[in-house]
Amino acid sequence: MAKKNIQQSEEKCALQEILGVIGGKWSMSIIYALFTGKKRFSELERLIPNISTRMLVKELKNMEANGIVIREVFATVPPTVEYTLTVKGEKLEPIINELQKWGVEYVI
Amino acid sequence: MAKKNIQQSEEKCALQEILGVIGGKWSMSIIYALFTGKKRFSELERLIPNISTRMLVKELKNMEANGIVIREVFATVPPTVEYTLTVKGEKLEPIINELQKWGVEYVI
Repeated sequence: MAKKNIQQSEEKCALQEILGVIGGKWSMSIIYALFTGKKRFSELERLIPNISTRMLVKELKNMEANGIVIREVFATVPPTVEYTLTVKGEKLEPIINELQKWGVEYVI
Repeated sequence: MAKKNIQQSEEKCALQEILGVIGGKWSMSIIYALFTGKKRFSELERLIPNISTRMLVKELKNMEANGIVIREVFATVPPTVEYTLTVKGEKLEPIINELQKWGVEYVI
């Protein structure tokens, strides 16, 4: 396999791994909603139309495990849970904004 | 809802629509494989490990319908089918490259 092809298939495995972290159908919308700062679970549910509670729980767990968001629990009654982007998550902002510009020009 | 919030939720609907076009688990890997030019179906299958034939057929159909790829059939025996990125598809290259850079720094 020519050198270029080997390099490309290594890059592609990398891309597949990356998409495993943020490629979920809802991850980018959740990250996008967190660009404007810390959010509670209910706020995320309101900001992301059509996402089910079960899916939001699953995606947030996956994103927390992958270091994209931080989950903080406050001992209020009932307890309050807030989500914040990590630095790693915030670095996606320019990419998602570029994706949106592409979409506005070519999709919507 | 404050003006900023309305604008943000409009942008989010746009993002969801965009992800509907290229957010599929395999779409970005297929687009990435086509950055190096026209590919046959079998080449795409070889370049994208772990994708099933059924899923590749489905994703390519979705991408063709959304104007991301062009499908050409050549009257060879048996017929040959080749896929090429449209201009719209090619414009994703810088975004996917940035996503990869992010991934190499933060995921792999």
